[in-house]
Amino acid sequence: MSAPSRSELDPAVAGLLRRDPAGLVAAVVQQHDTAEVLMVAWMDDEALHRTLTTGRATYWSRSRQEYWVKGETSGHRQWVRDVRLDCDGDALLVLVDQEGPACHTGERSCFHRPLRGHQASDLAGIRPEAGE
Amino acid sequence: MSAPSRSELDPAVAGLLRRDPAGLVAAVVQQHDTAEVLMVAWMDDEALHRTLTTGRATYWSRSRQEYWVKGETSGHRQWVRDVRLDCDGDALLVLVDQEGPACHTGERSCFHRPLRGHQASDLAGIRPEAGE
Repeated sequence: MSAPSRSELDPAVAGLLRRDPAGLVAAVVQQHDTAEVLMVAWMDDEALHRTLTTGRATYWSRSRQEYWVKGETSGHRQWVRDVRLDCDGDALLVLVDQEGPACHTGERSCFHRPLRGHQASDLAGIRPEAGE
Repeated sequence: MSAPSRSELDPAVAGLLRRDPAGLVAAVVQQHDTAEVLMVAWMDDEALHRTLTTGRATYWSRSRQEYWVKGETSGHRQWVRDVRLDCDGDALLVLVDQEGPACHTGERSCFHRPLRGHQASDLAGIRPEAGE
């Protein structure tokens, strides 16, 4: 299923987006001052329009097929400071001021599962430090 | 079209991934020391396997339908320092040491297009600073 296609998003912005088959772009959410990456969510045109005009981060839920405003139920709201588009138009960087944890598990960031133990070579390809 | 489904990725890791209909997860790429978000790309199981075992960031190109190793043609290589999975398994955070610019335009980050001029309310919803 796809997100709704009608939106009041500024056509100048809409024209820059390169959406996936479901009409979505990825939204990377970063704490504006510490630069911590908090989460990834998904936006269609209308979610981006609401995010830009209300200053509250709003996403499209792929599992529930509905819009959600971050923090509406948890209280862990995201106040939007800036939104940037990447060079090919399929991803947004949303700079926010995050109240409390961003993750529903209570962790500050959703990216709290390291895969390091599964790295066969322990990243043998790591670039040598300068001077080595 | 979908990415190839066969991969040597550790089944313990593969079991954690929640792929989109094309078999992909989003990969957010962050410079490991400055925390700058450099780009977003896409990985299937095999791209993740190659990234984890070679230490060189490897992606699946949705437009070209092929694997690509970042920097193979440009020289702007990404040396992988760590890979983390988010809570619902549909996004990876890849911490790298980026050589030169990450973006094909020559910019350090692909996220160099601000949407601020299109924000009707100039983000009137911004959270008040403490003390205000």
